[in-house]
Amino acid sequence: KDYQEPPAAPLFEVAELFCWSFYRAAIAEFIATFLFLYITLLTAIQVSNSPSKCSSVGALGISWAFGGMIFVLVYCTAGISGGHINPAVTFGLFVGRKLSLTRTLFYMVMQCLGAICGAIVVKGFEGNSVFELHSGGANVVSDGYTQLAGLGAEIIGTFLLVYTVFSATDAKFSACDSRVPILAPLPIGFAVFLVHLATIPITGTGINPARMDILGGTIGRGSVSGLLPPSCDKGISIQV
Amino acid sequence: KDYQEPPAAPLFEVAELFCWSFYRAAIAEFIATFLFLYITLLTAIQVSNSPSKCSSVGALGISWAFGGMIFVLVYCTAGISGGHINPAVTFGLFVGRKLSLTRTLFYMVMQCLGAICGAIVVKGFEGNSVFELHSGGANVVSDGYTQLAGLGAEIIGTFLLVYTVFSATDAKFSACDSRVPILAPLPIGFAVFLVHLATIPITGTGINPARMDILGGTIGRGSVSGLLPPSCDKGISIQV
Amino acid sequence: KDYQEPPAAPLFEVAELFCWSFYRAAIAEFIATFLFLYITLLTAIQVSNSPSKCSSVGALGISWAFGGMIFVLVYCTAGISGGHINPAVTFGLFVGRKLSLTRTLFYMVMQCLGAICGAIVVKGFEGNSVFELHSGGANVVSDGYTQLAGLGAEIIGTFLLVYTVFSATDAKFSACDSRVPILAPLPIGFAVFLVHLATIPITGTGINPARMDILGGTIGRGSVSGLLPPSCDKGISIQV
Amino acid sequence: KDYQEPPAAPLFEVAELFCWSFYRAAIAEFIATFLFLYITLLTAIQVSNSPSKCSSVGALGISWAFGGMIFVLVYCTAGISGGHINPAVTFGLFVGRKLSLTRTLFYMVMQCLGAICGAIVVKGFEGNSVFELHSGGANVVSDGYTQLAGLGAEIIGTFLLVYTVFSATDAKFSACDSRVPILAPLPIGFAVFLVHLATIPITGTGINPARMDILGGTIGRGSVSGLLPPSCDKGISIQV
Repeated sequence: KDYQEPPAAPLFEVAELFCWSFYRAAIAEFIATFLFLYITLLTAIQVSNSPSKCSSVGALGISWAFGGMIFVLVYCTAGISGGHINPAVTFGLFVGRKLSLTRTLFYMVMQCLGAICGAIVVKGFEGNSVFELHSGGANVVSDGYTQLAGLGAEIIGTFLLVYTVFSATDAKFSACDSRVPILAPLPIGFAVFLVHLATIPITGTGINPARMDILGGTIGRGSVSGLLPPSCDKGISIQV
Repeated sequence: KDYQEPPAAPLFEVAELFCWSFYRAAIAEFIATFLFLYITLLTAIQVSNSPSKCSSVGALGISWAFGGMIFVLVYCTAGISGGHINPAVTFGLFVGRKLSLTRTLFYMVMQCLGAICGAIVVKGFEGNSVFELHSGGANVVSDGYTQLAGLGAEIIGTFLLVYTVFSATDAKFSACDSRVPILAPLPIGFAVFLVHLATIPITGTGINPARMDILGGTIGRGSVSGLLPPSCDKGISIQV
Repeated sequence: KDYQEPPAAPLFEVAELFCWSFYRAAIAEFIATFLFLYITLLTAIQVSNSPSKCSSVGALGISWAFGGMIFVLVYCTAGISGGHINPAVTFGLFVGRKLSLTRTLFYMVMQCLGAICGAIVVKGFEGNSVFELHSGGANVVSDGYTQLAGLGAEIIGTFLLVYTVFSATDAKFSACDSRVPILAPLPIGFAVFLVHLATIPITGTGINPARMDILGGTIGRGSVSGLLPPSCDKGISIQV
Repeated sequence: KDYQEPPAAPLFEVAELFCWSFYRAAIAEFIATFLFLYITLLTAIQVSNSPSKCSSVGALGISWAFGGMIFVLVYCTAGISGGHINPAVTFGLFVGRKLSLTRTLFYMVMQCLGAICGAIVVKGFEGNSVFELHSGGANVVSDGYTQLAGLGAEIIGTFLLVYTVFSATDAKFSACDSRVPILAPLPIGFAVFLVHLATIPITGTGINPARMDILGGTIGRGSVSGLLPPSCDKGISIQV
């Protein structure tokens, strides 16, 4: 075949610390995660806060907000930072040796900072009382579902997302089928949209650990459902 | 013209049984059908189970779940297995001699296994009582419609889907119009979305036999509406 | 510049009557108009017939049905017949001398036949009583709007559609900007979606004369709003 | 690298005043802004005026109307005028020295004229009483939100839009990643859609000054939220 698997990224790469593009990429991750949290959290809280669901954008609107933001942000930042936005994706790519450890850690810190800023702005706009009333949009397992179902839903949802991301960016694909990289951000966005359509009623869908960790109270489950799946997924993706 | 119709696939091709890509393709079909059933069935049952339709994603959300999953999965697996997901599509391509019999049968078995696993997971998440209450999301002809209307709706719906698939992947098209293969997964996904928009109120839309057969009780109609149309469609597509 | 305006089509072209592609194109127009009417009319009547709007796909679902079908059908038939589907588009292209008179008339006849068949199938599925109750989905000017507002809304809506079609298929564009023809069916479908979003509450949106003429009772307005705008539009498009 | 930053546009360019393409571009901006105002305002007023939200297209439909129109119009006019439609975008590009002052002023005048015409047509269709009842669709800060929250929401919303526009059209991107310009109008349209999803409940979302200024009563805030952000955004975009 006529493609070349890129070499594994080194664990520590000192050179990149002196490169402006390294910091520009991290800033792009910060801005993207900030905008992602801002739009999605605002939409979700306003739907919860709406007296009649029919006059809000509803659960369908929330799903579009998540999926659409991922589409736009992956499109905008793919050429700068790779367009991760999600620490689970960053971690998955690190496990696959596509990123150095320094870059992985710096991205994750910036993503969490961006998410915190986004949540603070939404809290400022909505006021403390409304924000607390809806628990800051944090994910909880709904009544009628077991903790295991919540964990399972998060695992399968994250699997679908990471599976789509790997399919869309695989070097093998790009070589044999020029169609794939052109549309790439669109199916990634749709994957996020679809996971939310299906699992908002179960857990509120927390496939992005950046979103969960900073919103308090779900850190335990967040790290389980966010960090475990990418590694499982990796195994399966690589096998396939 | 400057295109070449690919030669008809042989009925039995022993060589492909010793090829890793054959098994990889079948695994991709399994994963894709599993994810398809999981997301769509979960969305459909949660809408049925929602006390007020306004707080769920509604019939529009169900249609998006079906169409969006087909878009994402065709995008992800087109380069690996051809992205059938649907036994009706596999069978239609077999009739058109694009697939060997061995591959056709292996795909169909994997698709049905994937669908069964997806349904089992959804049943596990929702609990037996909720799952049975909504008949496992199985398709029945609604009150006010005759069996003939149900069969007709399934036939025309499947025709629209197979017509779009053949238009999007025809070698003639690709040669004279480079635009077509780039967008291909998008109109295929939209075709599924639109069929569901129109026919959910009639039969619940069962254009995917993998979905129907395993959900019990509709196997008879499933085989009629699922296997008949592709062959009719084939006739019409070839004629056109 | 490095593009060539294609020469004006002759009024009568005897040669094309002996060419299989001429009849294939007309059959594609028939199938496309049939599928278009079938899906859109079925969706519209089922929404009208639904006791609670919230359990149907609603006005948003109707708009998606119209826009999505145009996207899929333009995609499927663009390489065969040019993907008109709409007599107003065929007439507009005839005025612009892109089609011969014979082809224009044959297309229009096939489009109207396809539309009639689609309406008959929907009538068969829904039963006479439901079909008549909703006037067969025919367009009427709603209460609270004048006839002039209805005509104006149809004219501006058709203008937006024809403007998008001309922008997407203009030879000048294709030469200087390779992006345009790749996405072309998508903005055309969106234009139809958007016109329906805005004008369903006014007239039900009848920018496709094939849909209106055969549904009875609105032929007069149909021909006014359907045939007048393309020629006005043409004037404006050419001027721009 | 193998791209060239285009040279800064001169402040005054007399030559372009004698060029037909200059006037064609301004006419395209007029038509685009007219169609944008017409479709979006009509959709918004009809949703407000609908007795039950469930029988209208709802807040989700309004968001689609704004985002979809931007997608279609950017697609149609990108090759003619650059597809600004929005004075904030025109002003932002002027600050970035991509446009001459004469072109900037002429565009803005034509955009405002187009917006006024669009609003007049909608007023004519809906009648004075309905139009006044809903304040002509003008943006006001909703109850429960401070003026500061309204201003902040407008600033972040405009930032997301301008950030996407700059990402999609940057010469650096186009050189290293051929994917970007092909999809460009789609993420721009989605950005507008997403901003409306999130901020319609706060201010009605007035990121387009052309829309606000002519609808009276909000000129003060309009100029603050419309003109300030692009310059801030510019700073940040350039820095990144």
